[in-house]
Amino acid sequence: MPVLSSSTPSTATTAEPLLERLRWRYATKAMDPSKPVPAEKVERILEAARLAPTSSGLQPYEIIVVTNPAIREQIRPIAWNQAQITDGSHLLVFAAWDDYTPERINHMFDLTNEVRGFKNEGWENYRQMLLATYPQRGAELNFQHAARQAYIGLGVALVAAAFEGVDATPMEGFDPAALDQILDLRARGLRSVAMLPLGYRLEKKDWLVKLEKVRRPRSAFVTELN
Amino acid sequence: MPVLSSSTPSTATTAEPLLERLRWRYATKAMDPSKPVPAEKVERILEAARLAPTSSGLQPYEIIVVTNPAIREQIRPIAWNQAQITDGSHLLVFAAWDDYTPERINHMFDLTNEVRGFKNEGWENYRQMLLATYPQRGAELNFQHAARQAYIGLGVALVAAAFEGVDATPMEGFDPAALDQILDLRARGLRSVAMLPLGYRLEKKDWLVKLEKVRRPRSAFVTELN
Repeated sequence: MPVLSSSTPSTATTAEPLLERLRWRYATKAMDPSKPVPAEKVERILEAARLAPTSSGLQPYEIIVVTNPAIREQIRPIAWNQAQITDGSHLLVFAAWDDYTPERINHMFDLTNEVRGFKNEGWENYRQMLLATYPQRGAELNFQHAARQAYIGLGVALVAAAFEGVDATPMEGFDPAALDQILDLRARGLRSVAMLPLGYRLEKKDWLVKLEKVRRPRSAFVTELN
Repeated sequence: MPVLSSSTPSTATTAEPLLERLRWRYATKAMDPSKPVPAEKVERILEAARLAPTSSGLQPYEIIVVTNPAIREQIRPIAWNQAQITDGSHLLVFAAWDDYTPERINHMFDLTNEVRGFKNEGWENYRQMLLATYPQRGAELNFQHAARQAYIGLGVALVAAAFEGVDATPMEGFDPAALDQILDLRARGLRSVAMLPLGYRLEKKDWLVKLEKVRRPRSAFVTELN
């Protein structure tokens, strides 16, 4: 009998459960205010985002979890009055770094050395390369780059929510400057880029729940160069 | 006995399998050129990206799947000579729309009406709102917005790869203008934003495989406003 190492790819593992969850989820329009999402489910959704990869491992964003009803009432009018903000139980705000500073870069490289228990020359050279390029290229370009990384986390978080059977509605329709002010994000070097309310669908009030999911066919989405 | 509707949240469903897969995956540095990823696995990874949500459902990006060895040989030198590009079996290139044009917006709204079999006044008003704002705000801003959506797909695709037991290395370290030229993307109104080679880890050549994954602790990543 052949010995299977842990690295032998398992052909039994498939993404079919993930695809099933992606077909189940949708941009929930009506959430049930009487059904809060259990804390342990929110924790696993946050943990999924925390584990998501980012460019150079810098994790250039944070997540603000707003449950406070008064704050969510303040946010709703600067977000097209979308009801999920207050009808869901948790509002996740993805806030990207406003810039890559030497302090932020060094913090992540230092943390890596600390966790792994050693310094590595290649890794230190890579640190110097980032220090010599990122801070100099300007805050706006760095923010745009950081925002993209936050979207990886957003994608992973919404998949995690779907695995939890929790509805989640990714939202960009809000005034980021106003949200930054409400949450005092700029003082922390952060800028809001997306929101993700969590809750449970209220089917009888949701116009979208029964409608078919629409995506371009594979032929208009994928090109193969063989 | 209470009747359970299909919308009753299942507390048994959790994201734990997803977290396990996220802990398993890493930015694979060495891939085994002798182990191609089976086509059906690549299909499910692409399908996951296709099902991923995007802003207003516009799906403003495409994926180019490069298996052709000569093309991958051309790409490698404009991407810091990263070996996974040619040692993996499939190279996924995420290419965002260079702009939101009326044609592109209308195409997606028309497709939605066609799939769902009816026109909806609210949806048509939303189309007009996008047509009145997106094309006018400039190609660069629109491209940056489209790029973020592509990163949702990137996040979902790399989770799907992990579910397939397939290694995937998200890459930004390449010359996008050069890659656009090699793949003739600009003529199609596309701009490359990220690459994702797929393959299987070659543990004995991979310096990263045994090192601990480093992430900021929850306390430095999540803030709660209760």
